Amino acid sequence: MPEPSFHSRIAAIAADVEACLDGFLSPGLLAGEIARPPRLLAAMRHAALEGGKRLRPFLVIEAAALFGMEGEGVLRAACALEMVHCYSLVHDDLPAMDDDDLRRGRPTVHKAFDEATAILAGDALLTYAFDIMGDAPTHADPAIRASLVTGLARAAGPGGMAGGQMLDLAAESSASPLPCAQIETLQAMKTGALIRFGVEAGAMIGGASLEDRRALTAYGRMLGSAFQIADDILDEEGDAALLGKAAAKDAGRNKATMVSALGLERAKALRDECAARACDALNPFGARANILRQAAEFAAARNH
Amino acid sequence: MPEPSFHSRIAAIAADVEACLDGFLSPGLLAGEIARPPRLLAAMRHAALEGGKRLRPFLVIEAAALFGMEGEGVLRAACALEMVHCYSLVHDDLPAMDDDDLRRGRPTVHKAFDEATAILAGDALLTYAFDIMGDAPTHADPAIRASLVTGLARAAGPGGMAGGQMLDLAAESSASPLPCAQIETLQAMKTGALIRFGVEAGAMIGGASLEDRRALTAYGRMLGSAFQIADDILDEEGDAALLGKAAAKDAGRNKATMVSALGLERAKALRDECAARACDALNPFGARANILRQAAEFAAARNH
Repeated sequence: MPEPSFHSRIAAIAADVEACLDGFLSPGLLAGEIARPPRLLAAMRHAALEGGKRLRPFLVIEAAALFGMEGEGVLRAACALEMVHCYSLVHDDLPAMDDDDLRRGRPTVHKAFDEATAILAGDALLTYAFDIMGDAPTHADPAIRASLVTGLARAAGPGGMAGGQMLDLAAESSASPLPCAQIETLQAMKTGALIRFGVEAGAMIGGASLEDRRALTAYGRMLGSAFQIADDILDEEGDAALLGKAAAKDAGRNKATMVSALGLERAKALRDECAARACDALNPFGARANILRQAAEFAAARNH
Repeated sequence: MPEPSFHSRIAAIAADVEACLDGFLSPGLLAGEIARPPRLLAAMRHAALEGGKRLRPFLVIEAAALFGMEGEGVLRAACALEMVHCYSLVHDDLPAMDDDDLRRGRPTVHKAFDEATAILAGDALLTYAFDIMGDAPTHADPAIRASLVTGLARAAGPGGMAGGQMLDLAAESSASPLPCAQIETLQAMKTGALIRFGVEAGAMIGGASLEDRRALTAYGRMLGSAFQIADDILDEEGDAALLGKAAAKDAGRNKATMVSALGLERAKALRDECAARACDALNPFGARANILRQAAEFAAARNH
């Protein structure tokens, strides 16, 4: 059972993220911009505001805090990553992809607006994220900003999240279920890469040593696996009210999940093992990393 | 009539761009990538290879050359910009947007593959562009790489290209034609921002003075206008074989164009005026900028 400090901390970060995203997605123009069409901005706001737990921003901020870094720049990087996450949800929900009408209990962007607007809102959130990541207020050192940009692009691009969604769609239309190793790759790309990058971004911002960065990358990788397997289990067991979407939808769709590959009990065991290994990876940081350990426990336990 | 040197130069650059994009869009993995799904890569290649004139890369490379900068880094930046241009074509062609089956005489990505793959291929090209722009081989100075990233994002984002496409879709479904000033804004965003950024990127890479950069920005802005108005005229007058798509499609669709706002003759006069002003903006560079002057003449004259 996670300690209360985790819940209050992630809630406080979510409030900061909400306010920061609200500022970014305002009508005001940045130098070099020509105009922000109100309908596009409204769709971007629909996609990015009143969002979920803000796990990825939490990871950026708490990983940076391990190295004593905090403040506006870290929050900006955290929000840039969250925008990329939000764009991916908008595009995944499109009729040509997962065709979902509801997300967190609200109409998806293409239902609340229209398909073309949803495609553009996703494109614009993705693009804006790189603007924020690369811009001076995010970090005093331009070499770190450039690394953040490249790292985010690689986690989200064809060899990461976008590639993972491609594999997921292929698995759905495939006649036979994917073997476990391929599901692992798919999930490491589709959801794992962005979660792992959240932790890595914090390490980059904090100027972590190579050794510390490796430890955090291992943590991020295991956390991502625990999170995704827990999501598969939640879909199998959860109820629609908790999810804000139809439950057991994955099975009906022939989605590649660890539950379908391993069965429910072995999937639960694997989830718990990943969470435990995530915690172990944090050993070099001692008690300073307790809040990240709680995040791993939370990721594994969120269906109870 | 443009001098032969322009045509041979833009053809040589197009060949370099093709080879460079071919390398980027190969199965090899970059550090941090997990896997590149072959189908996604094939769709990205369909979108980016055997492309058009490669005007935007030409502008990056020739603007950088004004300051004595050339080589691999400039070519990388030019290809990153071209990837963003190609992504925008893939998404614009989607059924929910302009619903085009042909592009440069070949099936569009969603026809050659499917809609979901086209959305993801566009997403992946956009994302990859920022990876390339931010990565060390593009420029030795990370501050310049970060500026290139931010500039590209701002030209392509909600206050630039993506916003322009939103305005274009709104104009199409509007009962009354847009006034001339609004078409100008729309076009400055939809096509102008990326063309202008091409010239600005070259100036950034070349370490141009503020004064030189301003001159090049003015050139890029006027060039973008001349180019877009010429495109509107081409659509009105051109034949399908030249365009590789159905001609006079814009009028049938109630597209906001300068021809519909001003009539053909005034649109031609405005196009020529923009091209002349683009050339004038290059005065500080004297004869060294002749190839960029030829580009402006080419942009205006390409329907003859």
